[in-house]
Amino acid sequence: MEAKLLSASSPPSFVVHVATKFSRPSFVLTSLTREFPVFKLQSVHASSNPIVSKTTKVRNSLIRQEDNIIFSLVERAQYCYNENTYDPEAFSMDGFHGSLVGRYTNSDEHPFFPDDLPDHVLPPSEYPQQKKEMMAIGNYISTAVCDTICLQALSKRIHYGKYVAECKYRASPYDYEAAIREQDRDRLMNLLMNLLTYPLVEESIKKRVEIKTMTYGQVVKDDVLKDDERDPVYRIKPSLVANIYGDWIMPLTKEVQVEYLLRRLDLDRLQGN
Amino acid sequence: MEAKLLSASSPPSFVVHVATKFSRPSFVLTSLTREFPVFKLQSVHASSNPIVSKTTKVRNSLIRQEDNIIFSLVERAQYCYNENTYDPEAFSMDGFHGSLVGRYTNSDEHPFFPDDLPDHVLPPSEYPQQKKEMMAIGNYISTAVCDTICLQALSKRIHYGKYVAECKYRASPYDYEAAIREQDRDRLMNLLMNLLTYPLVEESIKKRVEIKTMTYGQVVKDDVLKDDERDPVYRIKPSLVANIYGDWIMPLTKEVQVEYLLRRLDLDRLQGN
Repeated sequence: MEAKLLSASSPPSFVVHVATKFSRPSFVLTSLTREFPVFKLQSVHASSNPIVSKTTKVRNSLIRQEDNIIFSLVERAQYCYNENTYDPEAFSMDGFHGSLVGRYTNSDEHPFFPDDLPDHVLPPSEYPQQKKEMMAIGNYISTAVCDTICLQALSKRIHYGKYVAECKYRASPYDYEAAIREQDRDRLMNLLMNLLTYPLVEESIKKRVEIKTMTYGQVVKDDVLKDDERDPVYRIKPSLVANIYGDWIMPLTKEVQVEYLLRRLDLDRLQGN
Repeated sequence: MEAKLLSASSPPSFVVHVATKFSRPSFVLTSLTREFPVFKLQSVHASSNPIVSKTTKVRNSLIRQEDNIIFSLVERAQYCYNENTYDPEAFSMDGFHGSLVGRYTNSDEHPFFPDDLPDHVLPPSEYPQQKKEMMAIGNYISTAVCDTICLQALSKRIHYGKYVAECKYRASPYDYEAAIREQDRDRLMNLLMNLLTYPLVEESIKKRVEIKTMTYGQVVKDDVLKDDERDPVYRIKPSLVANIYGDWIMPLTKEVQVEYLLRRLDLDRLQGN
């Protein structure tokens, strides 16, 4: 039997600012053209109910993304905080403002196409060698690369809220429409989160993330096949990753869901649905 | 006690072509300025013998990079081969030659700074939607991103051969100098690889990589804390990763070591040592 799955189309662009009730920085849900699509039903071979099918697909992606987030945090955890990575003044020089952190300035990184690299912001000889060891600068570069990969993984997971919201909206559009027309954030949040079950769902996600981190974040010993009574050693504290989910990822995803739905009917209009 | 560690300096640049005896493509060890440094001894606080200290550091980094390589291969393994990702003709269009694979054209990727993105190679509307589903193109993009991360991890590990070679050279420079002056690759290879023990070392690395992949590549079940008699499920075949080490990473690293040493005395001269 031929069923329908949901895939993306490209309505015109606009920008959404999401402010959080916590003291996190605001961030931008960027232009619709590239990033904020409304799903269109497409004919593809898949299982019975298109909403259920899409929901399963979204759920599986969310679970799979947990692994990617844990991998990227484990990689980041090999470096210290390295405050200077985030301080534009750390290597201040007359007439220069910006970050000195650049890729392929580190001697253990090899570009595949060296001739295509952009020029250094500063010539290597002008790096402030007297002020900091080059080794330390190498660590700041690696730290920044890991941070970027972490942020991309977290951003993808948080913005997946729009797919989650679309699935929920499709499952019962009439429940949402009045709240959307009234632009009632609180009511939308209540509709999105079944308040009876949602805390349990969140706890089970945190538990799963913690268990996964115990697996993927453990230091594997050379003699792992032998019985070993020593406690496992983790590269990152498993409860810390669970708390990143509880304190950051899940609250921000909920806000993305609300922001998406607040504009959901406009998107239909723009597409002439 | 103050001891010395090794860190990088920047001699002038030249290019090294490495051809393999297997049917792999040649690759380029890029310019010395950024990528091919000779170590300089620097005064830092560290443990007793500088050679031993540096060798331990290099060894630890090699072991740590195994995790990164496994993580990146596990991530890649979530996608099929996706042949079209590598075929510049897959989406051929009149007057256009190149890859259509670009980042942030995929609807689940959000740029942090959308205004700073380079233009699409083709406007999104010109993507060959009739020919392939956009969903499939999204997978090709994700595949290419994973490939790039894998290649960077593999490249870093393979090029680390120069650090390994430098440590070996420093430990007994006189053993190597005659072979370098005679540009005798075979003798250098024999010196680098203690032929009595090296096969055992390689086997133990492959075994460790396979065991690590069993850990980091396993699918973690929700009920992992309960006793579960089912066989573990792996996202990637552990022996496959071990074979990538045996068939590709270790042979190529050895070639990097030989190529590095062949130029080792030139580098001393260029630096006036």
